[in-house]
Amino acid sequence: MKLSLKEIAELIDGKIFGDENLIIKNISKIEESQNGDLTFLYLPAYEKYFPVTKASAILVKPGFNKTRKDISYIEVKNPNSAFFLIIEKYFKPTFNLKGIDNTAFVDTTAVLSENVSIGRNVVVSAGCRIGKNVKIFHNTVLLENVEIGDNSFLFSNVSVRENCKIGERVIVHSGTVIGSDGFGYEVDSFGVYHKIPQVGNVVIGDDVEIGSNVSIDRATIGSTIIKKGVKIDNLVQVAHNVVIGENTVLVAQCGVSGSTKVGNNCILAGQAGLVGHIELADKVIISAQSGYLNQLQNQGNTADHLYRNLKLLLE
Amino acid sequence: MKLSLKEIAELIDGKIFGDENLIIKNISKIEESQNGDLTFLYLPAYEKYFPVTKASAILVKPGFNKTRKDISYIEVKNPNSAFFLIIEKYFKPTFNLKGIDNTAFVDTTAVLSENVSIGRNVVVSAGCRIGKNVKIFHNTVLLENVEIGDNSFLFSNVSVRENCKIGERVIVHSGTVIGSDGFGYEVDSFGVYHKIPQVGNVVIGDDVEIGSNVSIDRATIGSTIIKKGVKIDNLVQVAHNVVIGENTVLVAQCGVSGSTKVGNNCILAGQAGLVGHIELADKVIISAQSGYLNQLQNQGNTADHLYRNLKLLLE
Amino acid sequence: MKLSLKEIAELIDGKIFGDENLIIKNISKIEESQNGDLTFLYLPAYEKYFPVTKASAILVKPGFNKTRKDISYIEVKNPNSAFFLIIEKYFKPTFNLKGIDNTAFVDTTAVLSENVSIGRNVVVSAGCRIGKNVKIFHNTVLLENVEIGDNSFLFSNVSVRENCKIGERVIVHSGTVIGSDGFGYEVDSFGVYHKIPQVGNVVIGDDVEIGSNVSIDRATIGSTIIKKGVKIDNLVQVAHNVVIGENTVLVAQCGVSGSTKVGNNCILAGQAGLVGHIELADKVIISAQSGYLNQLQNQGNTADHLYRNLKLLLE
Repeated sequence: MKLSLKEIAELIDGKIFGDENLIIKNISKIEESQNGDLTFLYLPAYEKYFPVTKASAILVKPGFNKTRKDISYIEVKNPNSAFFLIIEKYFKPTFNLKGIDNTAFVDTTAVLSENVSIGRNVVVSAGCRIGKNVKIFHNTVLLENVEIGDNSFLFSNVSVRENCKIGERVIVHSGTVIGSDGFGYEVDSFGVYHKIPQVGNVVIGDDVEIGSNVSIDRATIGSTIIKKGVKIDNLVQVAHNVVIGENTVLVAQCGVSGSTKVGNNCILAGQAGLVGHIELADKVIISAQSGYLNQLQNQGNTADHLYRNLKLLLE
Repeated sequence: MKLSLKEIAELIDGKIFGDENLIIKNISKIEESQNGDLTFLYLPAYEKYFPVTKASAILVKPGFNKTRKDISYIEVKNPNSAFFLIIEKYFKPTFNLKGIDNTAFVDTTAVLSENVSIGRNVVVSAGCRIGKNVKIFHNTVLLENVEIGDNSFLFSNVSVRENCKIGERVIVHSGTVIGSDGFGYEVDSFGVYHKIPQVGNVVIGDDVEIGSNVSIDRATIGSTIIKKGVKIDNLVQVAHNVVIGENTVLVAQCGVSGSTKVGNNCILAGQAGLVGHIELADKVIISAQSGYLNQLQNQGNTADHLYRNLKLLLE
Repeated sequence: MKLSLKEIAELIDGKIFGDENLIIKNISKIEESQNGDLTFLYLPAYEKYFPVTKASAILVKPGFNKTRKDISYIEVKNPNSAFFLIIEKYFKPTFNLKGIDNTAFVDTTAVLSENVSIGRNVVVSAGCRIGKNVKIFHNTVLLENVEIGDNSFLFSNVSVRENCKIGERVIVHSGTVIGSDGFGYEVDSFGVYHKIPQVGNVVIGDDVEIGSNVSIDRATIGSTIIKKGVKIDNLVQVAHNVVIGENTVLVAQCGVSGSTKVGNNCILAGQAGLVGHIELADKVIISAQSGYLNQLQNQGNTADHLYRNLKLLLE
């Protein structure tokens, strides 16, 4: 990367205070910056690093008190958004997986669109349909009749069970399992559990991202549904017959029990849990580690973190 | 599927109210049913879908108020159990993995019984013993001396470490790790942790099912033991030297710390946790997200969900 | 194993009460011991097994009341440490992975030091650098430019993304993912989330051990850092740009949110969670299932378990 501050300011529509010809060599976090770096300041907690950062330039909010004269500034309304725009434009990683590796297995009945890349030891079973520009990394396994939409991306060691459908521009990170059997049993009078066959599938909409080591179970009948734009963090559990609404966020290690329906634009924070067979309205926020047992049918409700409630009690 | 309502009623020992010659083409959840479908009604929360379901027939409890005349009914004592019986009989999935794939590695000292199926890139190391009718899906790895009983089933990308023993009719879902090292260290006076070799194994009884991305650690010495009939959901942690009693259920994301012994027919609900070195009696229920610190030595005790306790306090 | 009690006493610097010529054939837990076994007694909860153990010899603390005459004793200050020393000396497992398997892929631009062992179907991508004596088990995948220090050990089905660095004597257990994308998005006015490219990496110090099915995300920019001597249990989540200090312990299923910095010699107990952008001082203990929201800037603080606090309230 070798860009002038002027070029950067134009990209992000910012106003320079300092040397517009300054050459930026890299981007970095404020506490790790070196000479030649561009950084940004957004959260107040990081202001303590401003007096000591070695960055040569910094993105700040309009009106920032520019006490250091050895740094150039770009004022911009949202310094973090602007910074991410620079990352998107100049640093977006590319992956050089190309073609179908000769150690991969692609069943003769599978249909591959143009420009599909398949890594080593990948298994694409009978009846699979893979959209154009899809990349499937090494050692990932698709069982029968899996469908993957255009421009999607599966990293290494992913497992997708039979009949599951993945949309377009979906990203699935390593170690994730899509379509494992739902956890369903009938218990008899001796306390012995008998498995209920799980004959449904998982349907994942467009623009979904799924982190690493996530488990999404197939439906008992019908589909477990992850709608368009959902973002799922690492180690999340989604049980059978769950429906996650559009643009909802499931943060790391949270869990959604069977048949629960989460609305659109909700947030389940880290390690939160929902019981089964409930419905959440749109725009509900479940705080970190909260366990939620009841219906939440009003838009915009927040199920607050138990910890905070307790603190009030103790004070 | 093409079955008359009469055939279905006979299978589940139900009583028809409506057209016994009606042809059922599919089964579905009440809120997703289409014309020609059979569905069922069991939980009160789903009664709201009865007036609008498009199903042609429905399983209901005896005495159900049959207000709709455009639907045929089968009365049966347990509509959900009856429904699962239909799934079991007509919809149980089959897996067409056959033979030993030529990309699999089976050590010359491994012993395979009749009718074993081994998928692509599977590793069966020295000294392994695999029972009859076992299916091992693609990219699963068994290290030395692993034993797997008859009719068991390992999905893709499973890892089983050396010397672990798996019983008959066991199902292990993708991404699960059996026999990783227990988390055991000695800390010195400088605060540095020194690894204690974990030289035991994991022993899994018959009829156990283990979900996806589960971690079951090997014992420091002796065995981590999962007894007959235990059902383990996704993303569960079972630490070294734990013993899980027969027909006990570990729901998603719960964790059992080292050397703890859980009795028979217990339930650990989702995200619950048990500290180490405790014993739970039989038939104990630990509610979702509960953290349990003490002995529970009376049968049938329930460690109630923290959340509910707190609610009482707040009201 | 065939050792005299005298040889064992010399190894652990203990004092024999009984038959110094007794031959020990195996080691075992007190409740599982057989004739010929050596066991140990350390936690009071296990004293109930002393009257009934079938062990032939037992390690005990000085002054232990030696009521059974059919057992030989070795008194030693720390019976458990002494026992682990015996395991380390006589039972430490060895792994017979040798050489580069012909089904493994090692890019021509990768650099392997002497005595590297690489199992079946392993992928070592372009630009990787692997230190001497490193063992990489079957079906593990390293993307481009991964570095692994001397004497490190990766078990099966591990995924390491591009540019991540792993130190010396590091152990990574099966199913673990290092360097998956951090969970970072910009949300627009329609509630749609746009991915922020995650262009950093993960840097893991020497002597770190990482359990099975762990997720450690790469930094947005810069590095997610796991410092020397850190021990991570199974199913732990470490988010982007986190820093974990030296000799800190992360117990199973705990989670650390983005950009949080944990000090040296801390302990996060099982299922604990930390919010993002906070700093913990050295020697902080976060109890099991605690959710921690604030700064902890005094050394040696303990964020106590919510459950215990609640119990006080209820009593």
